[in-house]
Amino acid sequence: MQKLIRAAVVGYGNIGKYTLETLESSPDFEIAGVVRRSSSSVSPELQNYKVVTSINDLHNVDVAILCTPTRNVEKYAIECLSAGINTVDSFDIHSKILELRNSLNEYAVKNGAVSIISAGWDPGSDSVIRTLMEAMAPKGITYTNFGPGMSMGHTVAVKAIDGVKAALSMTIPTGTGVHRRMVYIELEDGYNFQEVSQSIKADDYFAHDETHVFQVDDVEALKDMGHGVLMERKGASGETQNQQFKFDMRINNPALTAQVLVSAARATLRQSPGAYTMIEIPVVDLLPGEKEMWIKKLV
Amino acid sequence: MQKLIRAAVVGYGNIGKYTLETLESSPDFEIAGVVRRSSSSVSPELQNYKVVTSINDLHNVDVAILCTPTRNVEKYAIECLSAGINTVDSFDIHSKILELRNSLNEYAVKNGAVSIISAGWDPGSDSVIRTLMEAMAPKGITYTNFGPGMSMGHTVAVKAIDGVKAALSMTIPTGTGVHRRMVYIELEDGYNFQEVSQSIKADDYFAHDETHVFQVDDVEALKDMGHGVLMERKGASGETQNQQFKFDMRINNPALTAQVLVSAARATLRQSPGAYTMIEIPVVDLLPGEKEMWIKKLV
Repeated sequence: MQKLIRAAVVGYGNIGKYTLETLESSPDFEIAGVVRRSSSSVSPELQNYKVVTSINDLHNVDVAILCTPTRNVEKYAIECLSAGINTVDSFDIHSKILELRNSLNEYAVKNGAVSIISAGWDPGSDSVIRTLMEAMAPKGITYTNFGPGMSMGHTVAVKAIDGVKAALSMTIPTGTGVHRRMVYIELEDGYNFQEVSQSIKADDYFAHDETHVFQVDDVEALKDMGHGVLMERKGASGETQNQQFKFDMRINNPALTAQVLVSAARATLRQSPGAYTMIEIPVVDLLPGEKEMWIKKLV
Repeated sequence: MQKLIRAAVVGYGNIGKYTLETLESSPDFEIAGVVRRSSSSVSPELQNYKVVTSINDLHNVDVAILCTPTRNVEKYAIECLSAGINTVDSFDIHSKILELRNSLNEYAVKNGAVSIISAGWDPGSDSVIRTLMEAMAPKGITYTNFGPGMSMGHTVAVKAIDGVKAALSMTIPTGTGVHRRMVYIELEDGYNFQEVSQSIKADDYFAHDETHVFQVDDVEALKDMGHGVLMERKGASGETQNQQFKFDMRINNPALTAQVLVSAARATLRQSPGAYTMIEIPVVDLLPGEKEMWIKKLV
């Protein structure tokens, strides 16, 4: 039997919980422990695991799965890589991905470790499909249409606005990569809905999109973690026009992110030291066991 | 400026013609020449190219794009790899892909060359997406639905049957990976349509599928090279059920095959010596230029 991959879950919010569940259902992994800011209050499902406040308190970790907020990814990744531990993350600020890769690459190479970054669904699996579609029809346009689904980033942005007690921002695709924002808020006492609504629409997160704001009694009652994407490319293969491609998925958002993280964690053990995005690794490396089996089954 | 990749087109049937056109529209390639069984009758579009009967008569070839019938791929690949020339092919007998890879791997490694095999759309780009979907939802079923489109293999099988003067076999998807065969034939004089139709339905290519045979006056009038695929997976990411994925494309068949071959030809220059299927190479290697540019644009 193959030696099990020892994984640590770093950060135990929504993604961390789904990641733990995914590791439990992945026969080639064992769980080295969970790293949290505080180890005092332990949830029931963590009873059987070592919960610590630093990755250095866990032993023989092969790979750390970073489930922290995006802005903390680099810090934790550097800490792990410096200790020779591989990392994966779902860093999602598209404009800073190359910078993060190049920064982590240095630490990874120096310590003989591997980092696979931005390994969620977008960036992540969507990136692989966008790249493949580009290779299949080099001239053309790809549209990425998100949703309907909750946008974490936009929801956080709404919550930061004065007068908002609770919020939910839904992303609604209207085609050709254009999105409508449907924002649901609970109002703080003493605030005027029209004024708060105007502040939301003026915020940089919303100013460039069609935005509708609604006042509701209970935001929690509206939340579901379903999400989706429709990527469409129409382009030319060689000189042949009108080649048409569509990738459409309807998924539980944190569950898919966690699964891609775990699959990428496995793939870290199959790369040379360095930092990589998902488009830089062979897809077969995401799967357990011998690649020959997958070639027979999937090619 | 980057040195151009010198590619040879081996075999000049339908795929070979589209491959030449694709190479002409790919700025990072130059055409070393075309290898044909006979160099005597030269089509007008080949006037500007060296047409030879052996790959050894072309100089400084980086990569040979094998556009021969599938059954000849191994022979030509071994010839090229033995001369240190990389190869790509669209070998499409699914059950023999692993065997071909392992055979060519030996020649490739020995001669410091690279071979990427089965680099069409299925096997090929579809294989990459099947693998990615498996990594996104490890438990579940993927259905690959082909068509509507002409099946080359089935058309050849019909033509081999006594009494068939000309034929076209269309693949029609009826869902969950099940296909209907719509067969159009011109009858040879002196044959009985009902008998020929029965022979077709009894042939191993058709015996297992719902098959309809029609007699027509002119098969050529029915032919178009459009094809398509719909791949669907419903599965679980970790313990979360009902994750749904679809990849749908409507394409000109030989044009897409040629484009994938050319993209894979480029990727051969970025792998260590050996033979690979498409799922074993990073997708970014299929694209021209610096990978950093693509990470910025596509991840």
